[in-house]
Amino acid sequence: MTLPQTDRTKLKRLPKRGHFDRETVYAILDEGFICHVGFAPEGQPFVIPTGYARVDDKLYIHGSQASRMLKTLSGGVDACVTVTIIDGLVLARSAFHHSMNYRSVVIFGRATLVDDREEKIAALVALSEHIIRGRWADVREPTEQEMRATTVLSMPIVEASAKIRTGPPLDDEEDYALPMWAGVIPLKLEAGEPINDPRLPEGIGIPEYARRYKR
Amino acid sequence: MTLPQTDRTKLKRLPKRGHFDRETVYAILDEGFICHVGFAPEGQPFVIPTGYARVDDKLYIHGSQASRMLKTLSGGVDACVTVTIIDGLVLARSAFHHSMNYRSVVIFGRATLVDDREEKIAALVALSEHIIRGRWADVREPTEQEMRATTVLSMPIVEASAKIRTGPPLDDEEDYALPMWAGVIPLKLEAGEPINDPRLPEGIGIPEYARRYKR
Repeated sequence: MTLPQTDRTKLKRLPKRGHFDRETVYAILDEGFICHVGFAPEGQPFVIPTGYARVDDKLYIHGSQASRMLKTLSGGVDACVTVTIIDGLVLARSAFHHSMNYRSVVIFGRATLVDDREEKIAALVALSEHIIRGRWADVREPTEQEMRATTVLSMPIVEASAKIRTGPPLDDEEDYALPMWAGVIPLKLEAGEPINDPRLPEGIGIPEYARRYKR
Repeated sequence: MTLPQTDRTKLKRLPKRGHFDRETVYAILDEGFICHVGFAPEGQPFVIPTGYARVDDKLYIHGSQASRMLKTLSGGVDACVTVTIIDGLVLARSAFHHSMNYRSVVIFGRATLVDDREEKIAALVALSEHIIRGRWADVREPTEQEMRATTVLSMPIVEASAKIRTGPPLDDEEDYALPMWAGVIPLKLEAGEPINDPRLPEGIGIPEYARRYKR
């Protein structure tokens, strides 16, 4: 299914890097887990990083009920949510053609407060499971007070697009003869060995989902 | 040296996570290499990822002279530049206290076009060297035409702050007795084995700065 191209999502430059099918947009959203949320109350832009999860055609973010960002967004202001995955450095023969391989998604729209209790719980589970699958079943679930202290917002994935660069450098034809190395250095977010909480009681092992964490 | 706290940079919540000394802010800027630039022409926010470099108390970004973002920013609009480094997932005993370890910097201000030729070249070198040190000496330098096709903007690092979370989860006291694992899963951007450009002539080895790339 294809997302509509609008003035805001249409790529003015390098249009072949643009993708408007939901499958591509969702695959990037499902691999990333940090978004940068932009909003501009009274014209002053703010860009704030936060976790997120996608459920169907909605993106959820959450945080403290006291969060300035969530309060502003729930007032129904225009927002822009961007997710960026860096896949590699692209080393060309010329300085000019250096680039990066990346996959990014930009979503425009307005967020709304999730106050339906079932949707709110489902969103919190999705947020947790999206960041680390298997964790929710292990943890103490939120109390009523914690639920009240948590704000969940949903943003419709309607006006959205992906931008992707892959592959080797693209040099000017005459530069291919130059005697320097060119290629790609792949980059990936990797998990290290889990670190026990210093107050962990003895005899509690590291669960599989933490030991084999991958994105 | 300490940056001034303003209405825009002051942390309303968790103020102990805030840092206003240049040393801390610069260390984060120097470790990261992707920023998310927010701007809001006519009130509509856009958040766009791009590379950057810091030189002294300026942040440089660059791109095509045709870039919509760079054109808008060089018009002198309010911008917000955010750099985020994710250091780990913080797994608490309660869903509520799950968190992430991260270091982020937010800079507010207006960018200006760099048209002084020496500063522009120095910024391009800095952008290249910040992303991969040692590369500039190997590559074909920009031609006059490429210089004209490239826009460089500088943003003063004056109104800026860092936000940092480190360490183990912080659970409610009564939850520490719960029999589940808690701790931190460290995350780090790692470089893989460099991939030769398919058109690389035989006999050109991978340079050290690519083979041992680290951030």
